[in-house]
Amino acid sequence: MLIAILIYEKLTALDAVGPYEALAHIPGAEVIMVAPREGAVITDTGNLALVAGGTTADIAAADALIVPGGEGNRVLLDDERLLGWIQRVHEHTRVTASVCTGALLLGAAGLLEGRRATTHWAYRDELPKYGATPVAERVVRDGKVVTAAGVSAGIELGLTVAAELFGEDAAKAAELGIEYDPKPPFGTGSPERAPAEIVEAVRELERG
Amino acid sequence: MLIAILIYEKLTALDAVGPYEALAHIPGAEVIMVAPREGAVITDTGNLALVAGGTTADIAAADALIVPGGEGNRVLLDDERLLGWIQRVHEHTRVTASVCTGALLLGAAGLLEGRRATTHWAYRDELPKYGATPVAERVVRDGKVVTAAGVSAGIELGLTVAAELFGEDAAKAAELGIEYDPKPPFGTGSPERAPAEIVEAVRELERG
Repeated sequence: MLIAILIYEKLTALDAVGPYEALAHIPGAEVIMVAPREGAVITDTGNLALVAGGTTADIAAADALIVPGGEGNRVLLDDERLLGWIQRVHEHTRVTASVCTGALLLGAAGLLEGRRATTHWAYRDELPKYGATPVAERVVRDGKVVTAAGVSAGIELGLTVAAELFGEDAAKAAELGIEYDPKPPFGTGSPERAPAEIVEAVRELERG
Repeated sequence: MLIAILIYEKLTALDAVGPYEALAHIPGAEVIMVAPREGAVITDTGNLALVAGGTTADIAAADALIVPGGEGNRVLLDDERLLGWIQRVHEHTRVTASVCTGALLLGAAGLLEGRRATTHWAYRDELPKYGATPVAERVVRDGKVVTAAGVSAGIELGLTVAAELFGEDAAKAAELGIEYDPKPPFGTGSPERAPAEIVEAVRELERG
């Protein structure tokens, strides 16, 4: 079962590595990170790079396609070559998914038109541009398109994709394998629960 | 504020990237992944590599040291050169931390002697070998040594280290920035709650 995770310059590392780790240890899962070009991909912090296992040119089809987010995808929203690749791979997937602002790339590829979807909380207002209805949930499924909230929600996205491709028992085992029994230390992980001044500071940082 | 995350061949990517992402976007945080040698480090799946920002030789001191886990650290448990580096950096840290089986490396370096500590649930029974008392919690603090449970607990470790180094408001903002408002899809992320047959299957996979 082939799962392709698209990576690109200035992506957010955890957006890609969260679902990767949830899926990569499942027997029968072949999870590959693919980048538009060969070589290391520098993430949004500028001081960590991920090395893809292949390029988009190597992958014509996959059982699942996962598109992470990160500030680097803004310049890709009109990259017809990459959007065309996403559309072609999507045609034959069982699941096409995004984490965080990866949803904007799915949107730009036309895959969110008429669908319920989510993204990082600070970017939910971008979704209607792509014909999508924003939903404030961790993981939103509409047909075979599954979108996840910001950054850390990629772990839940990965486990959801795991259940779809490998069955619920495999996904439960994956959840245990990565000991995903979270206890957030501060309880401020959503804009609905964080203090207003922290929400505004983070929104400013995110949207500039 | 310099935070060094040790990476090595066959580490678990999320163990390193979870705390990395929790810390790297905080103003004033300089988070660097350091490896024993230059070049890309291949993770435990064999098909994803991380590129470190430096080598252990470059880093003589740090405000925080974080040691992730992964099957690759078993061969390092008697690597006197690496253990000596951990000990020397630890002397001047404000926090020395581990994620998952990274605790075994801290133990081998003598840093868990007489302390309460945690690790991946399937390895808790290894901790007494290093003089530590195993504790089944997500993040365990004893003096300046902070240990986290398996894989995904590294996010919580990162947020805990963030609070220590940058204050609680910065950590709350980081928790919101990565939208860490988790809703595990299956509720099987701890051995206490997963079905017994899944616990045994995952334990077998982990411990072989």
